[in-house]
Amino acid sequence: MDTISDGWFSELQAELWPGQAFSLKVKNVIHKEKSKFQDIQIIDTETYGKCLILDGIIQCTSRDEFSYQEMISFLPLFCHPNPKKVLIVGGGDGGVAREVVKHPLVEEVHQIEIDERVVELSKQHLPSMACGFKSEKLKLTIGDGFEYMKNHKNEFDVIITDSSDPIGPAVSLFNESYYKLMKHALKEDGIVCSQGGSFWLDLSYIKKTMLGCKEHFPKVTYAITSVPSYPCGHIGFVIGSLNKNQKFVNSVNKIDNFDIEALDLKYYTPEVHDAAFALPRWVQQSLMSVLN
Amino acid sequence: MDTISDGWFSELQAELWPGQAFSLKVKNVIHKEKSKFQDIQIIDTETYGKCLILDGIIQCTSRDEFSYQEMISFLPLFCHPNPKKVLIVGGGDGGVAREVVKHPLVEEVHQIEIDERVVELSKQHLPSMACGFKSEKLKLTIGDGFEYMKNHKNEFDVIITDSSDPIGPAVSLFNESYYKLMKHALKEDGIVCSQGGSFWLDLSYIKKTMLGCKEHFPKVTYAITSVPSYPCGHIGFVIGSLNKNQKFVNSVNKIDNFDIEALDLKYYTPEVHDAAFALPRWVQQSLMSVLN
Repeated sequence: MDTISDGWFSELQAELWPGQAFSLKVKNVIHKEKSKFQDIQIIDTETYGKCLILDGIIQCTSRDEFSYQEMISFLPLFCHPNPKKVLIVGGGDGGVAREVVKHPLVEEVHQIEIDERVVELSKQHLPSMACGFKSEKLKLTIGDGFEYMKNHKNEFDVIITDSSDPIGPAVSLFNESYYKLMKHALKEDGIVCSQGGSFWLDLSYIKKTMLGCKEHFPKVTYAITSVPSYPCGHIGFVIGSLNKNQKFVNSVNKIDNFDIEALDLKYYTPEVHDAAFALPRWVQQSLMSVLN
Repeated sequence: MDTISDGWFSELQAELWPGQAFSLKVKNVIHKEKSKFQDIQIIDTETYGKCLILDGIIQCTSRDEFSYQEMISFLPLFCHPNPKKVLIVGGGDGGVAREVVKHPLVEEVHQIEIDERVVELSKQHLPSMACGFKSEKLKLTIGDGFEYMKNHKNEFDVIITDSSDPIGPAVSLFNESYYKLMKHALKEDGIVCSQGGSFWLDLSYIKKTMLGCKEHFPKVTYAITSVPSYPCGHIGFVIGSLNKNQKFVNSVNKIDNFDIEALDLKYYTPEVHDAAFALPRWVQQSLMSVLN
């Protein structure tokens, strides 16, 4: 089925969010190709700016991407006392790299993205995100995240997984075996943060992912942020820490070490950090056995 | 334009949210009529249950309505030390009444709804919401909220305005003159809470509404909750208090007086209450002059 019809792009995904669809009015299709891994589309929209679409699913739009990129980056970074060396898995548009390199304690950022074409097309058409690739702190490798981590032990303080949804190429990034690999790539007290879906859609899948994380990480939690162009208007993150005394909320390292105002943030604040972990009662109850 | 096409209902609203649309797959149209005030549609959807639509805009769905109803009710009720007498303006589906009457300190709830047909159709087709009308605490009046309040001075502890969007019949409920009327209908230290739109859509309109509120209420704030079937996946509330020392966050009356577990809530928790007031940095900065 063609997802652009009558000038509107519609995000239909019967497996992940049956019976609902978000649509954006299209100004023009900037680029369309089938890479080795996925269908890539970049469109210009009437009111959400440029939009990157992989396999028919919106990855980011210029209008609201900062919420996702800032939160997936600064939630784990501000929970860690000294995040010197960071790994980004996925994130081919460059937006997460753009945020991570801002953190003054971060010295090195390594990124492993499977699809070179997403990086190239983002550099060409989404420069406000791809600017993240320009940082001297960043080393980008094209390849498979699983393979990459097998060769990197005890190296990273924080691993951020900016993946597409658990369907197609990214499905393994939601498995217990992926959390095991990340554990071995992390230094002592390391933290992982992964895209984790919406609690309105499939809470049992989130719970399964968190249980996989909990096999290897003593502290596991789930946080959310508002992103109108994602299904149900928000997205969650599964966060795990190897520090068994980890506090995610009101964590001491959030703001003490430097001036947060200098980071040029649009979404993240210390209050937004804490609020991200406040889950609705039915979600809290459903995840209680994993959260504690 | 017909908003149901190929078995999908699409919420197109070029004035309020241009260039974007949310769609729900329709099982069947349960009812459709033009009342004295608006177009009313009730549809059964594939994955969101029953859905009430007024003038083409989704008002509530069975799947996610509890988030809106609980938050518009309990945010103001738990900020007030003793909310004995409450007025609901609008709320013709009964969902807000269902929540407000649960509060053990609430003795009397008065509701003024302009469109009798919304009430009747909700009783017929949306019983899980309209059950709110059955409470002995509730007195429902059909009529105009403005007129009603002119005849009620110094009566209410809390006024909740559960209106449609600021287009068509509800537009006056966002004006400064409405806040003036509510002030006079309130007792000392009374609190108002109104549906206030999404910060992703028209932040300047939210600011204008809040400035209108601030003309009459010394303390004004804005809070949010996640509702996937609303534009941008969430909705905000403008809250004003006549108590110049009002604290909205960490307010003492949230949980001290009774067992919150007894209220049968699915969304609201004390942590969710506080989190609702944590606004993204750019929103906080834009509203700063009103919030302080």
